[in-house]
Amino acid sequence: MAKAPVLTPQAEDFPRWYQDLLNKAELAENGPVRGTMVIRPYAYAIWERMVSEVDARIKATGAENAYFPLFIPESYLHREAEHVEGFSPELAVVTHAGGKELEEPAVVRPTSETVIGEYMAKWIQSYRDLPLLLNQWSNVVRWELRPRVFLRTSEFLWQEGHTAHATEAEASEYARRILEDVYEDFMVNVLAIPVFTGVKTAAERFAGADDTLACEAMMRDGKALQMGTSHSLGQNFSRVFDISYSDPEGAQQLCWTTSWGVSTRMMGGLIMGHGDDLGLRLPPKVAEVQAVVTVVRDSDGSVTDAARRLEQELCDAGVRARLDDRVDTPFGRRATDWELKGVPVRLELGPRDLEEGQVTVARRDLALDSDGSRNPASKAALPLDGAARAVPGLLEEIQATMLEAATAARDAATVDVDGVAEALEATRSGFARIPWKRLGTEGERELAESAVTVRCLQAEGGGLPASIDDEGVVALVARSY
Amino acid sequence: MAKAPVLTPQAEDFPRWYQDLLNKAELAENGPVRGTMVIRPYAYAIWERMVSEVDARIKATGAENAYFPLFIPESYLHREAEHVEGFSPELAVVTHAGGKELEEPAVVRPTSETVIGEYMAKWIQSYRDLPLLLNQWSNVVRWELRPRVFLRTSEFLWQEGHTAHATEAEASEYARRILEDVYEDFMVNVLAIPVFTGVKTAAERFAGADDTLACEAMMRDGKALQMGTSHSLGQNFSRVFDISYSDPEGAQQLCWTTSWGVSTRMMGGLIMGHGDDLGLRLPPKVAEVQAVVTVVRDSDGSVTDAARRLEQELCDAGVRARLDDRVDTPFGRRATDWELKGVPVRLELGPRDLEEGQVTVARRDLALDSDGSRNPASKAALPLDGAARAVPGLLEEIQATMLEAATAARDAATVDVDGVAEALEATRSGFARIPWKRLGTEGERELAESAVTVRCLQAEGGGLPASIDDEGVVALVARSY
Repeated sequence: MAKAPVLTPQAEDFPRWYQDLLNKAELAENGPVRGTMVIRPYAYAIWERMVSEVDARIKATGAENAYFPLFIPESYLHREAEHVEGFSPELAVVTHAGGKELEEPAVVRPTSETVIGEYMAKWIQSYRDLPLLLNQWSNVVRWELRPRVFLRTSEFLWQEGHTAHATEAEASEYARRILEDVYEDFMVNVLAIPVFTGVKTAAERFAGADDTLACEAMMRDGKALQMGTSHSLGQNFSRVFDISYSDPEGAQQLCWTTSWGVSTRMMGGLIMGHGDDLGLRLPPKVAEVQAVVTVVRDSDGSVTDAARRLEQELCDAGVRARLDDRVDTPFGRRATDWELKGVPVRLELGPRDLEEGQVTVARRDLALDSDGSRNPASKAALPLDGAARAVPGLLEEIQATMLEAATAARDAATVDVDGVAEALEATRSGFARIPWKRLGTEGERELAESAVTVRCLQAEGGGLPASIDDEGVVALVARSY
Repeated sequence: MAKAPVLTPQAEDFPRWYQDLLNKAELAENGPVRGTMVIRPYAYAIWERMVSEVDARIKATGAENAYFPLFIPESYLHREAEHVEGFSPELAVVTHAGGKELEEPAVVRPTSETVIGEYMAKWIQSYRDLPLLLNQWSNVVRWELRPRVFLRTSEFLWQEGHTAHATEAEASEYARRILEDVYEDFMVNVLAIPVFTGVKTAAERFAGADDTLACEAMMRDGKALQMGTSHSLGQNFSRVFDISYSDPEGAQQLCWTTSWGVSTRMMGGLIMGHGDDLGLRLPPKVAEVQAVVTVVRDSDGSVTDAARRLEQELCDAGVRARLDDRVDTPFGRRATDWELKGVPVRLELGPRDLEEGQVTVARRDLALDSDGSRNPASKAALPLDGAARAVPGLLEEIQATMLEAATAARDAATVDVDGVAEALEATRSGFARIPWKRLGTEGERELAESAVTVRCLQAEGGGLPASIDDEGVVALVARSY
């Protein structure tokens, strides 16, 4: 009798595969209050690596971290009309505190443009104070009716950047830089997830923005996930919060502001962008454990000793390695578990290997063939002596291969189409690309009736368009999370 | 006419000195909702260094980071009687979300014992799952009637560790380890703040704990600040949340749990523990800028060039250095500002210095004599060539000197006394030490009438007592923040 698979196969039920994986790999679960989540240590360690990589890139653009309060006076949100209209249905409101009813209810921040705007207005006096480049790592709350862990939760973790500039050109240049040099670079080069960068249509824009730039990735079920956004807020917030400066001639001018963010949603993207029927597949750069040395069996301790030496050699070679010497647990069960957890490289050592001076090296990224069957080529025997030194190069190769494979899969599932009917057909299994002049807002509305949306508008050759009115601008459309 | 000081002198009005410094050094300010705070970039960078140092020490004890929700069902808090009694007056409650009234109000976490207890109960089955060592970095909310930035705010940032163990001995050993190897080690060796470690009396214990261990520091006004606590929770939470395991014999046993935390309150401790009438004094290990190279004046760019080279040499020597070449701003004003911001070392370079091949090196820690006058010995001329290489050693010396000075000041203001009247007198300017058998809970109540409290109980020779009933246990009493 064939063993039941650990996870529901992706082709059978992708959402259930996702839920199975969250549970079985001990990544996260639902919190007790509707829509909240508990992030377990294995997933949180991945999030910590994401934070550290994104944070370094943000700081490289000159932004500094700060912290603004969780609670925002309800009245602040009402100052920018579109902003409050966009967020009102999702707000959580504190009405009682310290045993009393509050005079003014406090909103739990859904995002912090308003409160940060209030302080920017205080801190900015002259053109010498510009640009003001701030970022914060925090939790935010947006009440969700259909929550799904990591993808759509009532509370999530994120960073939100907020900047003020002297000119419109400088502000939009900075918003672009964040999208490309911070977000796209991180997603492509660390997460090994290719992203389409583009501009949102008016229908999909952030509430209160003039322009929203976005990174859109394709999940393995062909649906889109918005992985990060960067907004040009024009003078919408500076007008209502009076964020202004005196220019070199002494005249008072309104600032141009931006805001931008990525969140724990990227965890969902990582899982659904790379995971397969065996479990997670982690790109080495975000894997907490990059290589696990597994003792297959041991009768006299000699295999464990050799495995421990190998683990030490891996650590010395700069690899985040771990030893699995739990020989009381059947080897097969442990191998399945490391596959489930997506550890990029496994080094398996048994008595026979030791005798022959070799170790079996298994690559997680190649474990399954494209038809879903086991790929024998994912395992190879290496001489034990020198095996550790080969691993750093192997991890680099895995990182590159995962990006190539994800890019090829995405491009194969992205189809050029000529009309709405074709687009609806193509988005059953991937993205459709259609000239924006041909689709237009009318076509966008038609797609929306089938829950297909314009993910972003791109320049003819891809990437951010100079203007969405340019000849040759294309719309990428898809079903989305 | 003498210049007005930048800050209110400490001796004149310590709380106002503190408030002045928060504003003028651009550290933090009040948020718009009562009791909340905005942490500005200069202070937040210090907090990030604190987080990174504490986090590394926590991970070295084997604990892993995770994340639990901001919102806790109100009913969870009611399960542990003392816990809810302790926290009820401080709770912020969300009654409405997503445009509707919630069926069960959600409490904004004041601490997470209850929600983490609920999940520990799910995750722990057998003795093999123990110990379970978790930590999280998060915000928490405790409504404050008399808020003061960093010291007592309605929202603050902290880490909270939560662990479950098989035996009482293991749990209390771990709680001790956190207090001594993580908190005390960090405070002494990174913050350069000496702390008294001890046990809280029943009156001062955490709501729901069997035992609370604490680190208590003396601020420069002689008052105590509780800098960190570690609690043995006994089986109080495991009983009500059913955190249990099957032991090797298959019998079901209740776990023993601990919790422990340090918060942004430590920022207040850093400011009030080291700051003087000129401003902050930062120990080099937490200073975001350890050395600033200041161009005094420059007519032809040559001084700025030399200063830039010096800054580069400092960076190459592993020093976090910054260049101040804002020659448009008067040198005196800039020097005052770097003093205010507590940068440990300033290297001042003018045209004359450059001519003579030297640089003036100023130590922030020694800027003022004990009588409050300027200390000329805090500045010295060094040959420009090789100056950068001398700075790492100088930073180490400053770190050590600051700890020594703080320890000497604290010990000089800690007086052995024999009764309540003497204790009240001594605590007008520092701490009093009194045998616990002599003071007792009766004496503790008398002191409380004058707002003097037992900060902790120590063993005869200092440090954590094996038992508070031991002969020779002493009470450290003080006024406190």
